[in-house]
Amino acid sequence: MNGFFYPRTATGQAALIPPPPWHYSGDLLTVEYRTDPERVRELLPAPLELAPEDPGAVAFIWADWQSCRASKEELLDPVLSQYKEAFVVVRCAFQGVTYSRCVYIWVDKDFAILRGMHQGYPKKLGSIHQTRPHPYGPAPRVAVGATFGATVAAADRRLAEAVLTLTHESETNGFVNSHPMAHHRVYPSIERGAQTDAYSELISSGSASFEAGPAFAGDVELRLFEAPTEEVARLEVEEIIGGYYRQVGVVWDGGSTLAKLIP
Amino acid sequence: MNGFFYPRTATGQAALIPPPPWHYSGDLLTVEYRTDPERVRELLPAPLELAPEDPGAVAFIWADWQSCRASKEELLDPVLSQYKEAFVVVRCAFQGVTYSRCVYIWVDKDFAILRGMHQGYPKKLGSIHQTRPHPYGPAPRVAVGATFGATVAAADRRLAEAVLTLTHESETNGFVNSHPMAHHRVYPSIERGAQTDAYSELISSGSASFEAGPAFAGDVELRLFEAPTEEVARLEVEEIIGGYYRQVGVVWDGGSTLAKLIP
Amino acid sequence: MNGFFYPRTATGQAALIPPPPWHYSGDLLTVEYRTDPERVRELLPAPLELAPEDPGAVAFIWADWQSCRASKEELLDPVLSQYKEAFVVVRCAFQGVTYSRCVYIWVDKDFAILRGMHQGYPKKLGSIHQTRPHPYGPAPRVAVGATFGATVAAADRRLAEAVLTLTHESETNGFVNSHPMAHHRVYPSIERGAQTDAYSELISSGSASFEAGPAFAGDVELRLFEAPTEEVARLEVEEIIGGYYRQVGVVWDGGSTLAKLIP
Amino acid sequence: MNGFFYPRTATGQAALIPPPPWHYSGDLLTVEYRTDPERVRELLPAPLELAPEDPGAVAFIWADWQSCRASKEELLDPVLSQYKEAFVVVRCAFQGVTYSRCVYIWVDKDFAILRGMHQGYPKKLGSIHQTRPHPYGPAPRVAVGATFGATVAAADRRLAEAVLTLTHESETNGFVNSHPMAHHRVYPSIERGAQTDAYSELISSGSASFEAGPAFAGDVELRLFEAPTEEVARLEVEEIIGGYYRQVGVVWDGGSTLAKLIP
Repeated sequence: MNGFFYPRTATGQAALIPPPPWHYSGDLLTVEYRTDPERVRELLPAPLELAPEDPGAVAFIWADWQSCRASKEELLDPVLSQYKEAFVVVRCAFQGVTYSRCVYIWVDKDFAILRGMHQGYPKKLGSIHQTRPHPYGPAPRVAVGATFGATVAAADRRLAEAVLTLTHESETNGFVNSHPMAHHRVYPSIERGAQTDAYSELISSGSASFEAGPAFAGDVELRLFEAPTEEVARLEVEEIIGGYYRQVGVVWDGGSTLAKLIP
Repeated sequence: MNGFFYPRTATGQAALIPPPPWHYSGDLLTVEYRTDPERVRELLPAPLELAPEDPGAVAFIWADWQSCRASKEELLDPVLSQYKEAFVVVRCAFQGVTYSRCVYIWVDKDFAILRGMHQGYPKKLGSIHQTRPHPYGPAPRVAVGATFGATVAAADRRLAEAVLTLTHESETNGFVNSHPMAHHRVYPSIERGAQTDAYSELISSGSASFEAGPAFAGDVELRLFEAPTEEVARLEVEEIIGGYYRQVGVVWDGGSTLAKLIP
Repeated sequence: MNGFFYPRTATGQAALIPPPPWHYSGDLLTVEYRTDPERVRELLPAPLELAPEDPGAVAFIWADWQSCRASKEELLDPVLSQYKEAFVVVRCAFQGVTYSRCVYIWVDKDFAILRGMHQGYPKKLGSIHQTRPHPYGPAPRVAVGATFGATVAAADRRLAEAVLTLTHESETNGFVNSHPMAHHRVYPSIERGAQTDAYSELISSGSASFEAGPAFAGDVELRLFEAPTEEVARLEVEEIIGGYYRQVGVVWDGGSTLAKLIP
Repeated sequence: MNGFFYPRTATGQAALIPPPPWHYSGDLLTVEYRTDPERVRELLPAPLELAPEDPGAVAFIWADWQSCRASKEELLDPVLSQYKEAFVVVRCAFQGVTYSRCVYIWVDKDFAILRGMHQGYPKKLGSIHQTRPHPYGPAPRVAVGATFGATVAAADRRLAEAVLTLTHESETNGFVNSHPMAHHRVYPSIERGAQTDAYSELISSGSASFEAGPAFAGDVELRLFEAPTEEVARLEVEEIIGGYYRQVGVVWDGGSTLAKLIP
């Protein structure tokens, strides 16, 4: 049987996602801020702990992606390669090492959901938008002075929106999402009435390779909205750290198990 | 941490799906036909085998659902409860017992994808439609003489379409999807370059309770179309068995492990 | 050239909508309430005036439709027939006669937008949902005691939501939307800088035929939400009149010009 | 009453589109080819005639847009500014002057449909994609050697797809869409059984201002597919003229009436 995740067939042609490596071109709009660290702690299952430094730091990140396998074939049928996402990253610690961790994420394609299942991102469908830079007409250039908007909605409700004006080139694109990711991969038990997981592991992963243009920092506003099936607004904005914009090329090629939890 | 699958939080409010039981109201349009049994065998991973009787039988099923937890709260915000799906079921055998098995499935909501992950359905997003019965105006009644259409597309391409005209009440709603389901639940290894699964089990599940109106059978046509990222058209229609229509109420409440495969 | 509205071709096959008559099967969920009549007056262009009786009455209506031409062919490829809408109706007067008038409306298909252009409904795209009745499982029956939810969103924002519990059969399905519609059909001038219309007429239309099941009335809640590109929340709910539910079959076959305004 | 087209209100805030001028940033992927001129003639209503030179020339164009009013406010809530379109342009003649004319077009937003109504474009909803250039990662740069894919689907069916590889800078971005547009603006009569238009005019319009990067030409393939509600595949590709790519900034500010036809 062939096919990386599912469905599996004789040829593997129908598989929703190819095996890694996965190649990405994209634009990242990042808002970093501080919230009450207790709200971060609530989102860290064992064996994770709060990061020792700046434990309430949060990154709200929008990304506008094109992704493909090494042959790039999905790029030429772009319904198979283009997707957008918005996600929330906190920091945490495991065995004395600081990791980044995605606690909420919305995407707009099924292949992105299944890649998230593989990588441990808790992906829901959403409607995600960010202003695209362009060299002509009214859209902003990637340059000091440019202003970008970013929004995310799910289940017919606006969840968050940001406006970022670039003020200067920056040495960093933020720090909250700069560690390897520490994610759980879980499978609830199929048994009737079970409240346990059949499978659970803690994994770590990061980019296999990375290229990027200059990072820009700027003035940013972020608004979070309540919704009946979301909790992102609990991560209240107490203090803005900064806003960042960067165009990147990334390769992701797997990770490694930090801890087998179940069985 | 609370939340049935993901994300997990202090309250569980943000979880994409609640814990079972899951309650469903829906309309099922089923087309049963025979294909080359070798095409079915290709889709049965170990330890499954071809069913001993009628091994090339296939059911192509459309379902128009409303689903919710026992409190029914999702019904009142129906973007959270309504979804449609089209799926392909074959039969297989494990340890001498015949099971049904879903080999391809498309749905139009994220909560349905994640429930599929739990139940072992290989769900992709699609655009699924079936004619709805209605007591007034041009739409068909649920009655002899009514004609229903059904279609499914994914990634901007039509994959299958059927037209069913009800000719008589029927004792059954078909036989291919009438066994408990035998599904794999797998998690590919996160390790770089691994071609193995970190987790794999064979599970079985079926409805915890079931109510339904009369089943109708009729004359049916089914057309399957090629697409670059799909293989459903390989299950060529060699002989139509029948077409069926039935309105049902279902409760699903978990299943049981048939075989732990990995680790 | 053939084709009812556009595009027009030698055969007419590509036309987005066929010529009337248009046949509909659907479920209507109606909330009637009173708002400040001045807010209604703001939405009535000349030569329309406030209705002499109950001038602040408003109907917020959800409809779940299947529509087709007389041959019913769209029913069998239901992506071409199924759509949902939510719309707001007020009353008005012209030459001493009371009319209904749709002031805001959202639909989820392009053919519905173009039919709206023809009929004078100011249609935008939206995400519209209402609980569907079903004879089995958790969904409500069409009967006293049943509870239905209804929601509408546009541009990623929830605009309105209602919950209706049927308490008794009713002689009417409400009164606000019970008159012939009085709608403007306008075409802004193409000339640079023109602030005028090139074409404007006031038309009237109603159903050519109508069949329906029993109407039900009940207890209802309606909530309206602000959005940057909408004004529906200005029609504040001052007093609920009632909530109604009815399944209908309708034929629409054109209307008549009440007044040629421009040229 | 305020609001450029509809709905009209006291403030104009709810209007689906603002008054012109409309400002655009976008990427254009153009395929030019020749078809049987009789197939073009079929699509030219009176008083238009075939263009005297190269009457069978066709341009199939994909565009990935951000659009806004002069204040640019829609750019910061990009669900209100971003849209994609695919459209087919032929040439025609009126009173001895050659014009371009859009005969088919698909877009993915409601505001684009209504702008099309104003400008005389026969817009339907579609699912439109084109590879986006990007400076990092696997996506193509805007440079010789880059390969772009483009696709359009409507009503769940793929209608056309193209693959373009840039081979050299070009003095032009094609010639078929380089004239002012000659479009009909029509309103079918509301009267029951009428087969006539209540309003019809022939208008002309073009860009009020234009800026652009270098145009590139290249090798291109175009495939057209049949669909029950489309006729674009009748414009068969007999001979490819060329493929082009260009990033542009455009302002559109109205047009002028060429001929009042009805009344």
